[in-house]
Amino acid sequence: MRGRRIVLARRPHGLPRPEDFRLETVDVAQPVDGQVLVHNIFCTADPGSRGRLSGEKSYARPLELGEPIEGSTVGEIVRSSNPKFAVGDIVAGAFGWQEYGLSEGRGLRKIARDPKIPLTAHVGVLGIPGLTAYFGLKDLGRPQPGETVLVSSAAGAVGATVGQIARMLGCRAVGIAGGERKCRWLREEIGFDAVIDHHNGNLTHAIAAACPAGVNVFFDNVGGETLEAAVANMAMRGRIVISGQVSEYNKPAAERTGLRNVVAFIGQRLRMEGLVVFDYSKQFGAAIEEMSGWIRDGRLKFREEIAQGMESLPELFIGLLSGRNFGRPLAQIRDWT
Amino acid sequence: MRGRRIVLARRPHGLPRPEDFRLETVDVAQPVDGQVLVHNIFCTADPGSRGRLSGEKSYARPLELGEPIEGSTVGEIVRSSNPKFAVGDIVAGAFGWQEYGLSEGRGLRKIARDPKIPLTAHVGVLGIPGLTAYFGLKDLGRPQPGETVLVSSAAGAVGATVGQIARMLGCRAVGIAGGERKCRWLREEIGFDAVIDHHNGNLTHAIAAACPAGVNVFFDNVGGETLEAAVANMAMRGRIVISGQVSEYNKPAAERTGLRNVVAFIGQRLRMEGLVVFDYSKQFGAAIEEMSGWIRDGRLKFREEIAQGMESLPELFIGLLSGRNFGRPLAQIRDWT
Repeated sequence: MRGRRIVLARRPHGLPRPEDFRLETVDVAQPVDGQVLVHNIFCTADPGSRGRLSGEKSYARPLELGEPIEGSTVGEIVRSSNPKFAVGDIVAGAFGWQEYGLSEGRGLRKIARDPKIPLTAHVGVLGIPGLTAYFGLKDLGRPQPGETVLVSSAAGAVGATVGQIARMLGCRAVGIAGGERKCRWLREEIGFDAVIDHHNGNLTHAIAAACPAGVNVFFDNVGGETLEAAVANMAMRGRIVISGQVSEYNKPAAERTGLRNVVAFIGQRLRMEGLVVFDYSKQFGAAIEEMSGWIRDGRLKFREEIAQGMESLPELFIGLLSGRNFGRPLAQIRDWT
Repeated sequence: MRGRRIVLARRPHGLPRPEDFRLETVDVAQPVDGQVLVHNIFCTADPGSRGRLSGEKSYARPLELGEPIEGSTVGEIVRSSNPKFAVGDIVAGAFGWQEYGLSEGRGLRKIARDPKIPLTAHVGVLGIPGLTAYFGLKDLGRPQPGETVLVSSAAGAVGATVGQIARMLGCRAVGIAGGERKCRWLREEIGFDAVIDHHNGNLTHAIAAACPAGVNVFFDNVGGETLEAAVANMAMRGRIVISGQVSEYNKPAAERTGLRNVVAFIGQRLRMEGLVVFDYSKQFGAAIEEMSGWIRDGRLKFREEIAQGMESLPELFIGLLSGRNFGRPLAQIRDWT
């Protein structure tokens, strides 16, 4: 039995290029002793995977050359020697860009079929991006009713969820996104109170205009100049949630932009905190259940960009790091009905 | 009745120069309706005052040209129309660089004479610097026994106090200071577990060597490259207390160094928070009482650099911003026995 996968061929410098990836076909081992074999249907392209490609020390070990690129997956159990999983079960996992995945079952989550919730939602709004929004906003941002929540990369899977949860918590939601199409979607479909197009002029001034009482919570997925512009507009005792820094991932540590105005932290009593969503894994089940309810009753919306075929993943990933995607990027890697 | 004072003559760009200050003699108003007149004995030079000289927006309004420079003071009540204060009382206040200060009594703190505690301690280790160390470390740093606390500008009034309180809390105290004289004092007199001389080579490597288990709390008085080097060495869930950023105060916001590696906040789950000690003013009395006990029983030491005459204040201040002082810098502005 053979399966296809995409591995790291070369460490990218700056924005990854297609040659940094290699599609290959390898033998697939069969499950033994409590293992299951999953035939994946969907794989995601994740901005957070960029960090492990450079070989730099981080909280996660660097990816080795020849290893599959990280990503979330939805697949079907096709062989099982684990009594908890039956052939035909659909599971969300993190097998990366691979057709087949072998697992002892840890980290696999069975998905109940629900006509109102597509399978792909389980690696998007109900997967790592949605959970990142949920726990980052609630636990680190701690917004109070009436406060202003600003989120960067607002049209992304994390950002759009942050905005919608902020509104459910009684806050004013302001988003930053690139391009009129994304901004219109955020205003008209997602219900942000205000949206800033970062293609249009000075971001610091635009945030000041959109957040006249200052920013109480800044949920940052971008970093660099976006973070700087937000810091200049924080209200007293504002909280900054560092969820992602997509503008910085392509740069070695010494070349990063970072944040110039640390002095503002004193006067404004700011707090900035980094988020790793896996720290909340024991609470994932309850959060997914709550968010599933919001999806069913139409209060939590999301957008996906589904490409066809495993071959499309490198371009999806590069597009994501360049801000070209619109919606959670994933690839359907085999037929499924 | 006339009194001398030093006012802002010109807004400094970069490091202040003597010409930015002007010594003048002005009429002194007499106290009426609950006011007191204080004849000051000691005035301090404070790094935190630098921010208000530039005219830049901050949490405190900029100082106007012609206004006295900010500073803490110890003085004697020489006229009183307030029943709470009698002529001859010694009070700590914040009259700035002035011979006389008129007050309604708010913000004045009566000092009990104590043979073991010099008057000057009340504008140093028992004043704003000591309270900054106390509340910043306890409330924002929250060190646990066995953790490593790193502090920059460790030979300063704030830093030396941070190190000593950290040790009382059961932590390992590591200091960063400039020059062998300060480092020896911190090791031999103050009792730091390790001291790094930032004049000697790569700070990032030196911190790594002195803090092999990583830094749990970084108490930062300096900012810029010092902050960057500490961030590279933070332990998981490390806390960064932004108390001062003396390396940044002389620069306009757009030219600040800041912090490049915000990405590290994610992987290491770091938290960075800005401190304004006046937020704890209701708890000052209890903290001063506790720290006074530590001074009396020899557990809390401090060092002062006392210059003679009000004229010496601009040079003390410039020296402080250049890292040339050694001990809390203050001037005795009149005779006192």
